[in-house]
Amino acid sequence: MTVSPRLPTSIATVCLSGTLPDKLEAASSAGFEGIEIFENDLLTFDGTPGDVRRMCEDLDLAVTIFQPFRDFEAMPEPQRARNLDRAERKFDTMQALGTDLILVCSSVHPAALPEPERAAADFHEMADRASRRGLRVCYEALAWGRHVSRWRQAWDVVRRADHPALGLCLDSFHTLALGDDLGGIAADVPPEKLFFLQLADAPMLSMDALSWSRHHRLFPGQGELPVAPFLAELLAAGYAGPLSLEIFNDEFRAAPSRRIARDGLRSLVWLEEQVGRAPLPAIPALSGIEFVEFAVDAEAAGALGHFVSTLGFRRVGRHRSKEVELWRNGDANLVLNSEADSAAAEHFIQHGPSVCALAFRVDDPARLVARAEALHYSIWSERIGAGESSIPGIRAPDGTLIYLIQETAARPNWENDFHLEAEGQDGGMLGIDHVAQAVPPGMVDSYVLFFRALFGLTPDSPWDLPDPYGLVRSRAFIGGEGCLRLPLNVSESGRTGTGRFVSATAGAGVHHIAFLVRDAAKAVDAAAARAAPLLDIPANYYEDLGARFGLAEDELAMLSRRHLLYDRDASGGVYRHVYTASYRDRFFLEMVERSGGYAGFGAANASIRMAAQRRRDSGADFGGAESS
Amino acid sequence: MTVSPRLPTSIATVCLSGTLPDKLEAASSAGFEGIEIFENDLLTFDGTPGDVRRMCEDLDLAVTIFQPFRDFEAMPEPQRARNLDRAERKFDTMQALGTDLILVCSSVHPAALPEPERAAADFHEMADRASRRGLRVCYEALAWGRHVSRWRQAWDVVRRADHPALGLCLDSFHTLALGDDLGGIAADVPPEKLFFLQLADAPMLSMDALSWSRHHRLFPGQGELPVAPFLAELLAAGYAGPLSLEIFNDEFRAAPSRRIARDGLRSLVWLEEQVGRAPLPAIPALSGIEFVEFAVDAEAAGALGHFVSTLGFRRVGRHRSKEVELWRNGDANLVLNSEADSAAAEHFIQHGPSVCALAFRVDDPARLVARAEALHYSIWSERIGAGESSIPGIRAPDGTLIYLIQETAARPNWENDFHLEAEGQDGGMLGIDHVAQAVPPGMVDSYVLFFRALFGLTPDSPWDLPDPYGLVRSRAFIGGEGCLRLPLNVSESGRTGTGRFVSATAGAGVHHIAFLVRDAAKAVDAAAARAAPLLDIPANYYEDLGARFGLAEDELAMLSRRHLLYDRDASGGVYRHVYTASYRDRFFLEMVERSGGYAGFGAANASIRMAAQRRRDSGADFGGAESS
Repeated sequence: MTVSPRLPTSIATVCLSGTLPDKLEAASSAGFEGIEIFENDLLTFDGTPGDVRRMCEDLDLAVTIFQPFRDFEAMPEPQRARNLDRAERKFDTMQALGTDLILVCSSVHPAALPEPERAAADFHEMADRASRRGLRVCYEALAWGRHVSRWRQAWDVVRRADHPALGLCLDSFHTLALGDDLGGIAADVPPEKLFFLQLADAPMLSMDALSWSRHHRLFPGQGELPVAPFLAELLAAGYAGPLSLEIFNDEFRAAPSRRIARDGLRSLVWLEEQVGRAPLPAIPALSGIEFVEFAVDAEAAGALGHFVSTLGFRRVGRHRSKEVELWRNGDANLVLNSEADSAAAEHFIQHGPSVCALAFRVDDPARLVARAEALHYSIWSERIGAGESSIPGIRAPDGTLIYLIQETAARPNWENDFHLEAEGQDGGMLGIDHVAQAVPPGMVDSYVLFFRALFGLTPDSPWDLPDPYGLVRSRAFIGGEGCLRLPLNVSESGRTGTGRFVSATAGAGVHHIAFLVRDAAKAVDAAAARAAPLLDIPANYYEDLGARFGLAEDELAMLSRRHLLYDRDASGGVYRHVYTASYRDRFFLEMVERSGGYAGFGAANASIRMAAQRRRDSGADFGGAESS
Repeated sequence: MTVSPRLPTSIATVCLSGTLPDKLEAASSAGFEGIEIFENDLLTFDGTPGDVRRMCEDLDLAVTIFQPFRDFEAMPEPQRARNLDRAERKFDTMQALGTDLILVCSSVHPAALPEPERAAADFHEMADRASRRGLRVCYEALAWGRHVSRWRQAWDVVRRADHPALGLCLDSFHTLALGDDLGGIAADVPPEKLFFLQLADAPMLSMDALSWSRHHRLFPGQGELPVAPFLAELLAAGYAGPLSLEIFNDEFRAAPSRRIARDGLRSLVWLEEQVGRAPLPAIPALSGIEFVEFAVDAEAAGALGHFVSTLGFRRVGRHRSKEVELWRNGDANLVLNSEADSAAAEHFIQHGPSVCALAFRVDDPARLVARAEALHYSIWSERIGAGESSIPGIRAPDGTLIYLIQETAARPNWENDFHLEAEGQDGGMLGIDHVAQAVPPGMVDSYVLFFRALFGLTPDSPWDLPDPYGLVRSRAFIGGEGCLRLPLNVSESGRTGTGRFVSATAGAGVHHIAFLVRDAAKAVDAAAARAAPLLDIPANYYEDLGARFGLAEDELAMLSRRHLLYDRDASGGVYRHVYTASYRDRFFLEMVERSGGYAGFGAANASIRMAAQRRRDSGADFGGAESS
C-alpha cells in the first residue's frame, strides 16, 4: 500500500479558550502546523496583525486562512460596492497577517438576491481584486445559507465565476448535517478548485443546524457523523491542502486550551488512520481488566482492606520491594498501593484514597504503547526493583494510569513481583465486570477520544439516570467483545452523587467497581455473613418488579430478602445485582450476575440505587410505622 | 365580571429535587393543595404507600393522580392480559396511596397495534376493573406516542371505550409542542370526560419533542408556549379539576425544592390571572430606576465613592439617621449603605461590597406590593427613623431588594431622609440606562418569572456573548416602554467574567450598571480628565468598524481616540458606549449614548469588552513592537 505524505494540520482559533496569544501557544505546543484566525480573536487582540504574524512565525504556525466576513455575495447596491470596499480592507489585514487565503461563507442576509449569476459575478470581481495582491478566495456553503446551503450550489457559483483565484472550501459539518455527501465531487470538481477543508464531527441531534453547529460540534471521532468517509472522498478527488479543525463547542470554549488542542491533533492523527493515509500501530485485542489499583496511605489501606474483605477479598500477597498489597477474590484482583514516591503517592496527594490505575489485559502491550505514542498520549513507567516486571502505563485524560498487562494462559508476570502469602478463597468472583468513572462535564469528550481512538472501544447508547438531586448522563464504552466495560458518568449538577464525587475527590475518575459473580444470591448471603454494608432496597421496588416482569412470588421473595436488584432485556437476558454503600463517599462496589446474554448495566435500577445511597449517606431512612 | 372559584393547585413530584418526603414538604409549604405521585418517587421511597398517604394527609396534600405505567393499550396477547394484571396491582397501590385517578399515556411500544378499537376495548376493560374499586382512569396523548399523539386521537379512543370511569387527561406541552390547540374541545368533549389537566410551558426550541419535553419544560410564564389560551379553552369547555404542573427540567431537578415549588405555585397564580379566573392587582406603570444601592462598609464606601467620582458622581447627601450616603450625577443616583443592622449589612456579610437594592419608579407602589404578596414574593420594610419615609421593598430571587418609589414630578419623598449637602454637578447623566445581573444557571427561570409575572417585563431576544473563557448567555427584560432595562447574564463556565463574578460574590446579582449620557464623547473626555479607569479598546476593532459600517475617517478617529465602542441597528439607530475596568473584580460601569431609537445593548461589542477586561484584570496587555 502506498502511503501518501501526511497533510498539514491546522486548527481554528475559535476551538480554543483564552486570548489570541494563549490560543496560538496551545496550538503550536500540541503540534499543529497551521492556524485559522477567526476574526473575533483578531479584533479583541491588542496588538497589530503584524504582531500576530510574527507570533505565528515564532511558533512555526502557518496562518492557513482568515475568515473575516459574512454576507458578501449577491447583495443589491449600494451594499455590493460597500462589500467590495470592505474586502479591500480585509485584504490589507490578510497581507499583514501573512495569509493568502480568505474564506467567505454563503450569505444569510435577508436582502441577498437568489441569483447564482450575480453571486458568481461578485466573486469574480472579488477574486480578481484578490489576485492582484497574490491572494485567493474560497467559498463555503453554510448549511443554513439563504440561497446556497449545499456544496454543489457553492460549486455552481465558483464554476460560473470561473476565476483562478476562486475555489471551494468544504466543511464536513455543513455537508453531513444536511444528510448530504461529497458523491460526485471527483467527477465534477477539478482538484485545483478544492482550496480548503474544514473538519468537524458532531453528535446526532435532532435540532436546527444553526444551533447544532454553534454549540455542539466535536473533533472527528468524538461524535457520530461519517467524517472519515467524507475525508476519503475528498482525498480521492485530489484535495491536498491542510486538514483544518473548526469546532464551535461551548465546553471547549471554557476548557484549558492545551488539553483541547492536544485532543484536536489526536483527532486528525486518528482520522488519517481511518482513511488509510497514515496508518498507526493497530489496536491489539483487549480481554478484560486484570486488576484495579488504589492509591492509599497506611490508614486507608487498612480501612479499604476491611471494606473489600466483607465481599470476600483476602490479602494474598505483598510486593517484593514496595508498600503494595494484592487482594484477591477468585479472578478479581485489587492492588492497594501506599508506596511513597510513586505515581500512586502523587495520585493520593491530589485526590485522597481513590483508584489510581486500571490494568487492561492486552495481547500486544508494546503495540498499544506505540499507538498511544503516535496519538500523543503520555506513557508512564514506574520505577522498579531488580528483576521486577516493567508494566507500561498510559495516562488517561484525568491522570489515572492504564497499565497494559500481557495476556497469558499461565500465571501473569506481574504476580511475580509479589510474595504470594495465600491463595484467595473462591468467593465465586469471575473477574471485574465493569468500572464506572465520574468525570466533570468538560472532560467527557477527551475520554471519548481516548477510549475510541486509542483502545477502539465503542460507545453504547447513552442513558439519563435520575439522581434525587439532578440528572446523571451515562454512556458505556465497550471493548474486547464485551469483556471490557467502562461506563462514563457526568452530571451538570454538583448535588448528585456523581457531582459530589467529582468535587470531593478533585475528579479522581473511578467511583464504582462491579465484580462478576456466578450466583448473586450466594454472593449476597456470603457477604451478609461478613457484615458487608449492602444497600437496603425499598419494598415498593419489589412490588413494581413483580408487576412489571410477572415474576413468581418465590423469585420475588428471594430477590427482596437479599436486596438484589433485577433487570431483564428484550431477549430474556437477566441481570441480578447488589450494591454496597459508598466507601467514605468516594466509591462503591457492586456484585453482578449475568445470564442469557444480558449486556447492559441495569440502568433502570440506577435511580433506586442512587436514592438508597443518598438515604444511607444522610442517615435519613424513613421510619414510617409500616416500614419496619 | 363573575369570578369563578380558584381551581385546586397540584404539582408532580418529578418537578422537585430530593427524596419523596422532601418533595411533599416543599409542595405543601409552597401552598399546593395536591400532588401527583410520579412512580419513580414511590419506588425509591423506603416507606409503604400507606406511609405516603399519611404524610400527605399531615401536609394537607391531596394525591391528585398516580402515574404508574406506560405502554398499556393495544398490545397483542399475552402482553394484553399481563398489562391488565399489572393494572390490578397498581390499583392496590392507588388505594393504599389514597388516590382514585390513574394516568395512562399513549403507548410508545413498537408492538402496539394501530387499532383504535383495540385500544378502546382495553381501556373499557381497565376502566371497568377500576370502577369496581371506585377508581377512575384517564388517557393522555404523548406527543411522540406510537399511534396516538394528539388529544383528538386520545378522545377518539375514550369516546369509543364509552365507560364512565374513563376520561381524558390534557397536557399543554404535548398539545402545543406539536403546534396543535384545543379548538373544538368544548363542542366535542362533554365536560365530565375532562378528568385531568397537566400544565407545562417551554422555550421555543427546534428539537425533537421527546428531548424537548424531558429536559426543557418550564413553569407557565417561564417559556414561550401559549399556555394561557390553552387553559382558557379548556375552562370554557367546562374543566373543573386541578391545575397540575408536570415539569421535566434538568435544572429544576438539581435546584432546592422549596424555591422551585414556590415558583410553581406563582406560575399558577399568574396563569389564573391571565385567563381572567382570579385577577391580581394590576401591574402599575414603571418608569425607570431611581437609584442603585450598594452594601458597603466604611472602607469600601470610601473606595467606591472614589471609583464613581471618576465618572463625575459627587456625594450630595448623608442620611438623617443612618450610615448612608447619596451620590449623584445629573439624574443618576447611587446610594452607599454601610448602616449596621440593616438589609444592606446582611447583604454585605453574605456577598461583600455589592449592589443590595434597586429602586424602581412606579406610579402605584402599594398596588405592586399587593401584587407581590398575591404572588407569594416576600416584602421587606427597613426599620426607619421618626418622620422618615417608608419605602416598600420586594425580595428578588437572589435576595436583592427591589424598592418601589412613588413616581412624582416634584422632588421624591425618599430624598427628604437625606441632609442634602450639595447639588450634583451636571456631568450630563440622564439617568440609569440599564442594570445587568449575573446569575448562576439554575436561577435564571426564577428571575424570568419574577420579572414577567410580577413586573410585566418582556424578554428581549437572547444573545450568546463569547467571553475568552466560555459563552455567556444574555437576555434583557424590558419594561416601562423601554425605560427599564435589565439584562440577565448566565454562564455554565466558571471561568468567564460572569462565572467568576458569581463565585466571587456568592451570586450577588448586579455586576454592571450603565448610565445614560447625552454625549458619550464629552462624557469620556470628562472621565479621562478625572483619571477614570476606562477600558482600552484594540486598534483592530476600529479597523473592522470602519470596514463594517463605512464610517468616515474623522468619526472613526473620534471613537478610537476615546476607546468608544459603536453599534448601529438596521434602522440607523446608533449606540456609543464606554466601559470602566471592573471594581475589585465585582462590577463595572458603562456610559452609553443612544440616538435614533437604538434599543439594544451593543451585544456585538461584548466580546471586545470581555477580552479587554480580562486583559486588564490579568495585567496581560500585549506588548508587541507595533502596538504601542
